[in-house]
Amino acid sequence: MAITKRSEDYSQWYLDIIKEAKLADYSPVKGCMVIRPNGFAIWERMQRALDDMFKETGHVNAYFPLFIPKSYLSKEAEHVEHFAKECAIVTHYRLKTAEDGSLVVDEDAKLEEELIIRPTSETIIWSAYKNWIQSYRDLPVLINQWANVVRWEMRTRLFLRTTEFLWQEGHTAHRTYDEAEEEALRILGIYKTFAEDFMAVPVYSGMKTETEKFAGADHTYAIEAMMQDKKALQAGTSHHLGQNFAKVFDVKFQDEDGEQKYVWATSWGASTRLMGALIMVHSDDQGLIVPPKLATKQVNIVPIWRKDDERASVMEYASRLKSALRERAVGVYVDDREDRSPGWKFNESELNGIPVRLELGPKEVASNAVVVCRRDTRTKETLSSNDLPERVTTLLDDIQRSLFERARDFRDSNTFDVQTYDEAIEVVKTNAGFARVFWSGTTEDELKLKDIQASIRCLVSDGESGTCVVSGKKATQKAIIAKSY
Amino acid sequence: MAITKRSEDYSQWYLDIIKEAKLADYSPVKGCMVIRPNGFAIWERMQRALDDMFKETGHVNAYFPLFIPKSYLSKEAEHVEHFAKECAIVTHYRLKTAEDGSLVVDEDAKLEEELIIRPTSETIIWSAYKNWIQSYRDLPVLINQWANVVRWEMRTRLFLRTTEFLWQEGHTAHRTYDEAEEEALRILGIYKTFAEDFMAVPVYSGMKTETEKFAGADHTYAIEAMMQDKKALQAGTSHHLGQNFAKVFDVKFQDEDGEQKYVWATSWGASTRLMGALIMVHSDDQGLIVPPKLATKQVNIVPIWRKDDERASVMEYASRLKSALRERAVGVYVDDREDRSPGWKFNESELNGIPVRLELGPKEVASNAVVVCRRDTRTKETLSSNDLPERVTTLLDDIQRSLFERARDFRDSNTFDVQTYDEAIEVVKTNAGFARVFWSGTTEDELKLKDIQASIRCLVSDGESGTCVVSGKKATQKAIIAKSY
Repeated sequence: MAITKRSEDYSQWYLDIIKEAKLADYSPVKGCMVIRPNGFAIWERMQRALDDMFKETGHVNAYFPLFIPKSYLSKEAEHVEHFAKECAIVTHYRLKTAEDGSLVVDEDAKLEEELIIRPTSETIIWSAYKNWIQSYRDLPVLINQWANVVRWEMRTRLFLRTTEFLWQEGHTAHRTYDEAEEEALRILGIYKTFAEDFMAVPVYSGMKTETEKFAGADHTYAIEAMMQDKKALQAGTSHHLGQNFAKVFDVKFQDEDGEQKYVWATSWGASTRLMGALIMVHSDDQGLIVPPKLATKQVNIVPIWRKDDERASVMEYASRLKSALRERAVGVYVDDREDRSPGWKFNESELNGIPVRLELGPKEVASNAVVVCRRDTRTKETLSSNDLPERVTTLLDDIQRSLFERARDFRDSNTFDVQTYDEAIEVVKTNAGFARVFWSGTTEDELKLKDIQASIRCLVSDGESGTCVVSGKKATQKAIIAKSY
Repeated sequence: MAITKRSEDYSQWYLDIIKEAKLADYSPVKGCMVIRPNGFAIWERMQRALDDMFKETGHVNAYFPLFIPKSYLSKEAEHVEHFAKECAIVTHYRLKTAEDGSLVVDEDAKLEEELIIRPTSETIIWSAYKNWIQSYRDLPVLINQWANVVRWEMRTRLFLRTTEFLWQEGHTAHRTYDEAEEEALRILGIYKTFAEDFMAVPVYSGMKTETEKFAGADHTYAIEAMMQDKKALQAGTSHHLGQNFAKVFDVKFQDEDGEQKYVWATSWGASTRLMGALIMVHSDDQGLIVPPKLATKQVNIVPIWRKDDERASVMEYASRLKSALRERAVGVYVDDREDRSPGWKFNESELNGIPVRLELGPKEVASNAVVVCRRDTRTKETLSSNDLPERVTTLLDDIQRSLFERARDFRDSNTFDVQTYDEAIEVVKTNAGFARVFWSGTTEDELKLKDIQASIRCLVSDGESGTCVVSGKKATQKAIIAKSY
């Protein structure tokens, strides 16, 4: 178990964490990953938290087919340009045994029309909405799905960019432009709340520029986080689709005034990429760090003994503490494996990012005490077991909050408000962090950032106004400029 | 909204229920379905209940790739024979725009090795287990995944047989044959408990015969339910895989005695087919019936008024009853749509299978009463609102239990213990129900059932022994013979 130091090779550090904490593996299929139980447990907590927030705001789940007929993808011009090119294509539906005994594609089973594995589901979903929406009474439609999608990627990195990934995609239909706008912003708010309150990852949220918006959208909102290497990672997007897909799939409704109108739409998604952000924002050279709200295993009890006659009392004590914590709904387990040393268990627990570890041996049993170690700061304290349940509950809250504060302080102190475009470029070029500038520039102005592998991550408004760094005109929004994943 | 009567055309009745209760739709892709929000909400409850039971018994979730290299499928002979033939095959990874502007497959982007969309994941999972399992300390591996799978079907029926479907598949690895056997039976038990306690569907559980076992298994267990047309539906299977996949993928572990041994395996699955069983066991000519434990919406409150001045008091009363029920964790909502009549709402609520409906108007407000209608029996009673919360809680339990009892009585009275093979064949041929006979017959004996489109659904043991209907020898198990979906 040797993890490369962040300071030596950030990229390798990231991969080492994933490997050693058993979060994911590459699979025999190029660019596809296996999400291992340790990683999937975190993803499940993320799913649950997001799903609850979607449902609280009136959304329901459904499931649409994996396959999209080729002709569907072609219908929306920008959309096909972006998504139809690098995709997995199903052309046949049968294998047969060849004369030499090998298994080959049966050419008699060629599909009339090729099927694309969904890279995103707008087209297949809007073809269904056409049948479901007739009247203003059928609106809004507020549907989400949890699904796998495939985008054929040449350069992949676990969680951040894989050929197949898991995500949720929301697809909503509304009576008016304004209702759709409200929905797109509501979801942006949910993503921001989720990132900050559950992942403990502070994010900038705002609108994407024309060059960075979703292919087929009127406009796109996103949340952007800063990794420890000061690069940005887009962690969720929410699109106002205008009437583009409604027109392409001819989805009209009879409004209260009797007129036939095209519906307005949004779509929005967050994916297993979030796992990459979680790892890169919090973890350290000792391994993964998981915020308590996303940890299934929040507290790990390591019982320690040497002699057999110590075993019973230590295990009994451990079991008693476990019960006391369970009563407070703490996710706690006792690591009672007898073929591993305490030191080995401590390391593994730090590697896996368990927020709190309790150590207890004969000395602690005798004094009714317990040693409490927090993963984020790696500090220890000794407590009376009577105080433990109360203290662990507040400690988990503390850890959750302080992870967020640490990440926010890091981001804030590495976000630079500068007055000229050259300064902004300098900030980003030297990997000093994010540059934040007043902006009312053009796409052409923005594209200069390509030379330094950077982009405008999002446009934020904080009520202030100032002078745009490229046009010199008054600007009411700022651009967050950064390199990104 | 016209539902065909069961007695007239059972098959059409089934499709009508799905359509009218908005559970699912066919999609533009042949044989694939869209699971609509009403259907998906039930599936989510099923998932949650099963997932909880898997976790309580030590299982964890993970995710493996959608794609399986063709060569992997070929490795296990029986397995490939069964699954590799009718499958979706990805041959290319890029589309391009042709000279005429149309979108075509880019022949330059042909895969070296074709990828199969998983029909089941044994092969891709066992290739990962090879890297994860080295020592007896790594065992058991108890992993489940929730995923979509694809089996190219020529004749499809919503939920029962679709090209793509959703399921869970467990894949476990063990030190010994006995441990794997214990696991396979534990899961069979979970499936039976889930079917009976949550779905309110009584099942026979037992071993499959050689002809009916999973391709690649040592032996297979299954649960089998009786539909209202007296045909059987297999609702979950649990396989002891022996060492077949371990040998094919060379998965060995060093045992405590220092020896290298192949691991023992199980796999098990339940799918969106369960939705088909749920519909076909309970529903009636008025629509869907959902057991309360699987209903997100358990109680539907319909407020009734004519004059505007009645509206406020009725709505206030409805809202008060809702709160009282919410406090007891009842899934309750008020249908306050003003553009639908009460009668229309009653129909819709019956169609959608909401277990309990409350009707209340000015008269009920005045007398502090409420009319309570149960969906399963379509009977009504009038209660004081003070008694309502208590009564609804017990009523939901009552409905859950009585749905199960009704289904069990139906099944039991249509399962015939007969003494000769001819009688058994007669029972099944005339669609009288299931035949149950002592059995120690051969595969040849069993295959005679093909002539009447029937099969042995499972072999059950109840401790009794008797004379086999084909061999005349003593038999300790009985065969359940039936036509099936």
